[in-house]
Amino acid sequence: MVLEKVNYPEDIKKLTEEELNLLADEIRKFIISVVERTGGHLASSLGVVELTIALLRVFSPPKDEIVWDVGHQSYPYKILTGRKKVFHTLRQYGGISGFPSIKESKYDAFGTGHSSTSISAALGIKIGKKLKGEEGHVIAVIGDGALTAGEAYEGLNNAGQLGEDLIVILNDNEMSISKNIGAISNYLTKLTTGESLRKAKERLENVTKKLFGEKVYKGLKRVEDLIVKGLFPPGMLFEELGFRYVGPIDGHDIPTLITTLNNVSKLKGPTLVHVLTKKGKGYAPAEERPDKFHGVSPKSKKKENLPPTYTEVFSKTLIEIAESDSDVVGITAAMPSGTGLDRFKERFPERYFDVGIAEQHAVTFAAGLAKKGLKPVVAIYSTFLQRAYDQIIHDVALQELPVIFAIDRAGLVGEDGATHHGAFDLSYLRIIPNIVVAAPKDEEELRHLLYTAIYSGKPFAVRYPRGRGYGIPIREPLKKIDIGTWEVLREGKDLVILATGWPVYQALKAAENLEKIGLNVTVVNARFVKPLDEKLLNQIAREFKLIVTVEENVVKGGFGSAVNEYLASWYTGRVFNLGLPDKFIEHGNQNLLRHLVGIDSEGIEKFAKDILTKKVLQK
Amino acid sequence: MVLEKVNYPEDIKKLTEEELNLLADEIRKFIISVVERTGGHLASSLGVVELTIALLRVFSPPKDEIVWDVGHQSYPYKILTGRKKVFHTLRQYGGISGFPSIKESKYDAFGTGHSSTSISAALGIKIGKKLKGEEGHVIAVIGDGALTAGEAYEGLNNAGQLGEDLIVILNDNEMSISKNIGAISNYLTKLTTGESLRKAKERLENVTKKLFGEKVYKGLKRVEDLIVKGLFPPGMLFEELGFRYVGPIDGHDIPTLITTLNNVSKLKGPTLVHVLTKKGKGYAPAEERPDKFHGVSPKSKKKENLPPTYTEVFSKTLIEIAESDSDVVGITAAMPSGTGLDRFKERFPERYFDVGIAEQHAVTFAAGLAKKGLKPVVAIYSTFLQRAYDQIIHDVALQELPVIFAIDRAGLVGEDGATHHGAFDLSYLRIIPNIVVAAPKDEEELRHLLYTAIYSGKPFAVRYPRGRGYGIPIREPLKKIDIGTWEVLREGKDLVILATGWPVYQALKAAENLEKIGLNVTVVNARFVKPLDEKLLNQIAREFKLIVTVEENVVKGGFGSAVNEYLASWYTGRVFNLGLPDKFIEHGNQNLLRHLVGIDSEGIEKFAKDILTKKVLQK
Repeated sequence: MVLEKVNYPEDIKKLTEEELNLLADEIRKFIISVVERTGGHLASSLGVVELTIALLRVFSPPKDEIVWDVGHQSYPYKILTGRKKVFHTLRQYGGISGFPSIKESKYDAFGTGHSSTSISAALGIKIGKKLKGEEGHVIAVIGDGALTAGEAYEGLNNAGQLGEDLIVILNDNEMSISKNIGAISNYLTKLTTGESLRKAKERLENVTKKLFGEKVYKGLKRVEDLIVKGLFPPGMLFEELGFRYVGPIDGHDIPTLITTLNNVSKLKGPTLVHVLTKKGKGYAPAEERPDKFHGVSPKSKKKENLPPTYTEVFSKTLIEIAESDSDVVGITAAMPSGTGLDRFKERFPERYFDVGIAEQHAVTFAAGLAKKGLKPVVAIYSTFLQRAYDQIIHDVALQELPVIFAIDRAGLVGEDGATHHGAFDLSYLRIIPNIVVAAPKDEEELRHLLYTAIYSGKPFAVRYPRGRGYGIPIREPLKKIDIGTWEVLREGKDLVILATGWPVYQALKAAENLEKIGLNVTVVNARFVKPLDEKLLNQIAREFKLIVTVEENVVKGGFGSAVNEYLASWYTGRVFNLGLPDKFIEHGNQNLLRHLVGIDSEGIEKFAKDILTKKVLQK
Repeated sequence: MVLEKVNYPEDIKKLTEEELNLLADEIRKFIISVVERTGGHLASSLGVVELTIALLRVFSPPKDEIVWDVGHQSYPYKILTGRKKVFHTLRQYGGISGFPSIKESKYDAFGTGHSSTSISAALGIKIGKKLKGEEGHVIAVIGDGALTAGEAYEGLNNAGQLGEDLIVILNDNEMSISKNIGAISNYLTKLTTGESLRKAKERLENVTKKLFGEKVYKGLKRVEDLIVKGLFPPGMLFEELGFRYVGPIDGHDIPTLITTLNNVSKLKGPTLVHVLTKKGKGYAPAEERPDKFHGVSPKSKKKENLPPTYTEVFSKTLIEIAESDSDVVGITAAMPSGTGLDRFKERFPERYFDVGIAEQHAVTFAAGLAKKGLKPVVAIYSTFLQRAYDQIIHDVALQELPVIFAIDRAGLVGEDGATHHGAFDLSYLRIIPNIVVAAPKDEEELRHLLYTAIYSGKPFAVRYPRGRGYGIPIREPLKKIDIGTWEVLREGKDLVILATGWPVYQALKAAENLEKIGLNVTVVNARFVKPLDEKLLNQIAREFKLIVTVEENVVKGGFGSAVNEYLASWYTGRVFNLGLPDKFIEHGNQNLLRHLVGIDSEGIEKFAKDILTKKVLQK
């Protein structure tokens, strides 16, 4: 085993060419064996095994600094920079992160998680090194999918102008998470298939014939390739942006990678190295369906008879609504399968828009559609929506254009960790005027809230968690829920729990347990975070001296905060806010994390019991 | 007067060529005469007079839809689409907006205010028209500066792929607000100066000589221009992104514009028309210094002996700190003069970075710098920071990298209106873990808070308003303020006002007036919104039954909300939150708007008096 003797970049520098190839095979097997158990981003990491080995052969982190865009392809890098022995703890609570993290290792130059920040971060690091008089190369490794995002372009544009010795490695696997989208992707395809050369030849042919006639053209024909290659250096788009373009090269050929990176390391100014890789390389199922193996779940027993996921319920409901309403349009920013819009695409291809990893554009584009009377539904993860905040405020809310935000992965998502928890959306959305913010207590209510949203004529956000529903069997016909109405699910005189979203059932269970020890608790499903059900809240405030709010969102500025605001000036009882704490929550099993922060039934039970038994501290 | 008989686009279609030219002159004079009085974006509107006339000659809004990027260049359009008679009310309270607004006119296809949304919105509108079976062209007019922003690229990338008949007019005046920045700008310059042709000729020369020798080359030389133009169509960068490129054409030559736009209107697929204009055209002072005349204030008496603006104080203080600390770096997203960083640039060019209109990149880039031990200060307007929300959360706060956000234009900005008020930053920032959020009571405290921020080693936001300070004459040596400490400015037993930022002095004045009628009020300068001064707040809660919070930020989720959260579970008194209401506030004089929402001294006085005299309503 070569991998046995390799722990750090310096070990790689001692290996023979043959050993490097063996190392690649061994790393692949190692990653597959661990990820089958822990879950994780298999395909992208398998795609960059040789690239990582070559990078660490040529460059020497931490002196040289490598920024992995998104970071889900960093497993080989983690293994080869001191984390082989702890790699089995990947994505588990207390274990190593599935993304680069500057707190985890000095080899991780910059933490990532969302796409398209690497060029900006690497440029900052490069300028920082320069101002500090520090030696060392800085390298950003970015996928072709991530190049569709505006920030990547902003970074290229600025780097091209500043002219620093920045190396950008374009890891082109023709995929982001699903099949790649956009004109830039077409451009890369043309580059790699030689289509741009073919077009250049056509132009040369036309011009030559017109000016000199057939004869000269035939003379030229023999040396055409040489002429064309001299006249049209490939990668002109990047050259126009101030980058030297190198490539495309085979990203699985270690000797070529090493030679190229060695040469590139001596170049001055910004350089883009175009590397072709295969996502999922070396693992047949992932090579065939890299979208399916982008993120994999741990192997487990068969999942028959389990409740559907919220994503599935959203997906089916949207199709159901769109069947009878041709104005319904679905928009995703490069996450068709993650958001469940892939099925909508199959059914209504002409009303489906995957705009690439481009959240800002997605929201403004949706606002344009809404302006024309359509009913656009932007299906997006909670954390990714953070990328389009200004667009939600200006393009949607200010203009009161009825864009629907179907916000998946709201709350704690589990193993993907801090960059992927949807911890903030209730807080950052409810402060925006003109928008309705709702969260269903279960998958059935999601159906009705989605229906309500689409026919509200208002900007409307519905947020729901990652994972399976509560298994509610009833499938009522879709109905409108009155905006701003809550529902009392259970009555008790000692205390009232106002819960929103996933924690509602947890609060019910907590209330049942409390009843066993003689504590009687009312539970309210506060399905609207904005507007609040003021009528019900007035009544509650009159009847109860103790109010508890529960949400799977930071307490700061969240649902509880909205209740506080409403009551602060006149309510004489006490309000206790339970939700996510004011810190970033690391990765780990979703339900474990929920338990640790105390928003599951046990946590709510203890929280309410402590209040009722006066264990809570006075300031 | 031609302008007398022109009110709507159809009137323009009846004019002779000579009248069109006269109309341009008259519109210029009209705009200058009004804007000298009202203030506004003079230079950009003067630059597009002929373009607007040509657009309205060829196209017919509202059937054809024109989206003006940013929108500050829309004055000629407003005048020519039914708003000539109300144009004198520009940017005044109750008058017409300085930006396009769908609520103001059916001729405004989409509201704008921040840059680089136009292509995305226009694409949405185009697809919307298609799905609705509606006729009509859709045109986005975007400046070269706005092209540096990621969203513009996201829009081009998606439009290039979808292939709809979208017309993008690139209004190239080589300026955004100040001199333009970035590789894309260099590219446009090459296009217009023929440098790309020159480079192509060089390549042709090299290749020909190498392959065929000097003789053939000389034969070719005569027809070189023809060959080069045939081989290298201009605008290849846009062509690569799927757009047909037309131009560059003279944006002040009405007949050429009309002919070109007529031709373009018949083309299929996405087309980019490259138009060259001069910002400030026809107004000598603005032509010479378009950055200075980007936004102009109404003419007024000389401003000697007035206090400095917060921007000026920030600018001087940053230079003062940077004089003795070579780690301090200044970053702006294309707003050097607006943020006051222009002076920093003069003094420390090597530590100054204008990254273009690219807020996302600006923040991640700053995080990269901070990672290397520098002290980056991102000087930015409150509303523009909304564009980098995810980057603040992930790249700065999650990694605890000490990036300083110097947030100018926080609170109500006045005539620029809803898109420019900094109404949300306290709310959207304080919910992020690991970040310090502060607001100075006056310009002197801004100095110390900036100093505190830079030496805090933490992510740190200091927000301050547009306009002049309170005229505090003392200039103490810079000192650190203990993070999370407030100060009691005045003591009274009846009620306590906790104010943050600009309203602090207003609260003091209110307190003085209340004293005259026997009401004694304590005033606290709550200069930290995160963390709160819990020690002082505990003491206050013990001593007072009535607490008022005041902020120039939305009440929802803001400073008052933070106080509520802290007190909700144990405080038995009442908390009254005063701040911006839950609606978008239109344009108008800054102090008038502050008065109308009740956060000036009179408003605070009335608010406190109503509480003390029990006029407030119980729910």
